[in-house]
Amino acid sequence: MKTLIVHAHPEPRSLNGALKDLAVTTLRKAGHEVRVSDLYAMGWNAVVDAGDFGSSASSPLLAVADSGRAFDTGTLAPDIRAEQEKLLWADTIIFQFPLWWYTMPAILKGWFDRVFTYHFAYGVGEHSDVKYGERFGEGTLMGRRGLLSVTVGGRESHYAPRGINGPIDDLLFPIQHGILYYPGIDVLPPFVVYNADRIDDEGFPDVAKAWEQRLLTLESAEPIPFRRQNFGDYEIPALELKEGLEPAGRSGFGLHLWS
Amino acid sequence: MKTLIVHAHPEPRSLNGALKDLAVTTLRKAGHEVRVSDLYAMGWNAVVDAGDFGSSASSPLLAVADSGRAFDTGTLAPDIRAEQEKLLWADTIIFQFPLWWYTMPAILKGWFDRVFTYHFAYGVGEHSDVKYGERFGEGTLMGRRGLLSVTVGGRESHYAPRGINGPIDDLLFPIQHGILYYPGIDVLPPFVVYNADRIDDEGFPDVAKAWEQRLLTLESAEPIPFRRQNFGDYEIPALELKEGLEPAGRSGFGLHLWS
Repeated sequence: MKTLIVHAHPEPRSLNGALKDLAVTTLRKAGHEVRVSDLYAMGWNAVVDAGDFGSSASSPLLAVADSGRAFDTGTLAPDIRAEQEKLLWADTIIFQFPLWWYTMPAILKGWFDRVFTYHFAYGVGEHSDVKYGERFGEGTLMGRRGLLSVTVGGRESHYAPRGINGPIDDLLFPIQHGILYYPGIDVLPPFVVYNADRIDDEGFPDVAKAWEQRLLTLESAEPIPFRRQNFGDYEIPALELKEGLEPAGRSGFGLHLWS
Repeated sequence: MKTLIVHAHPEPRSLNGALKDLAVTTLRKAGHEVRVSDLYAMGWNAVVDAGDFGSSASSPLLAVADSGRAFDTGTLAPDIRAEQEKLLWADTIIFQFPLWWYTMPAILKGWFDRVFTYHFAYGVGEHSDVKYGERFGEGTLMGRRGLLSVTVGGRESHYAPRGINGPIDDLLFPIQHGILYYPGIDVLPPFVVYNADRIDDEGFPDVAKAWEQRLLTLESAEPIPFRRQNFGDYEIPALELKEGLEPAGRSGFGLHLWS
């Protein structure tokens, strides 16, 4: 297994830092190759601008078209190219981050904004009567597995089906489905640690044990059963789920899981 | 009306730039005061780190506690303090941005990560048997109105109730409810422009007309009816919605609207 860990926390001596370190040692000890993109340590630039596209930047700037041309001609900024190469090298990708304001920290969003360019992560494949690009089940990163490892300050009940923040699966859907599954990554169920600010030295061993167990079963775990776009479930090009396919009472984001 | 526009797009000559400019001129012409935080033009730093907290930064860094202490003692970085002052000045806040990977660009996420500090936007008010802090209907920014103005590359059907991306209201829920309503902002229905990449000089006047109409009715528009946290709808401290309060068949994020 070749695992890329994308890590987004400002403090190495944090719970997130400890979970990242544990992933590195656990996977290496099990004989796997591991690379880490520690975004804070790298001083990762989080902001898309003309500098990303080198000589392919147009004026006015067109982020979609310019990023596609820069990808095609190899003129993307070197830091972006390096991350794309790591993604192509990896068969498994772990994202380690704290939930800040119900989603990822800006530095990680800026990693996706800059690295997931046109012609690499989107704008791939043909559009026809039966196909709307290669995405949601197909795409550049097809065959890879992805996993979110997330720490959350609040209690688990606040993220339960009736919890005030909304269900954790729905909060993570735009990341798991909209970002990871879009270019073809199979997404494993997330590893979520609640009450993260209250986990001390005494509480850490239980968290560590659960995380190690997840890490050692990455190859056998079943991905979230997101529906594939181009295989009959959706009207094309409207991309609305065909009537009657969903389990009774299912609505919202949950429509896009086939079981 | 005192309106703050927070604008997040790298290209001034873009649809987002035009919508921001139109908001400024339309509101000023109607006699309102307008201030703009143009994040790209300001070179906004999107990344939370120890520099945010000045002499209040601890080692190891504790982003929650340190930001609260820095807020209390006036040692937050000057760029953060300036944005907090603008928020307190405003009675209406407009966020202008393109939907990138189903949420806001990193530079805007980094504005929330850095400006919405502990003791300012969260960690406000007492916790007791009947109250779980002042949030979701109470808080520092109570009495203000907020509005997302969002451009979207895809077709409207892709964001419809059965659309493959998920319903637009659900995609925006973590921002509208989780970020804006949390510190007390009343959130107006979003202004969403679909097929944004295909809007040319010929198509722009229709979009502009719809946007002007929304701008001139900001004071009378009805906010999204999110439920208040501390007024009987939720179990405390579990913060789960009490049984039977929701309209039949309602689930997920939709539970947290009272009508």
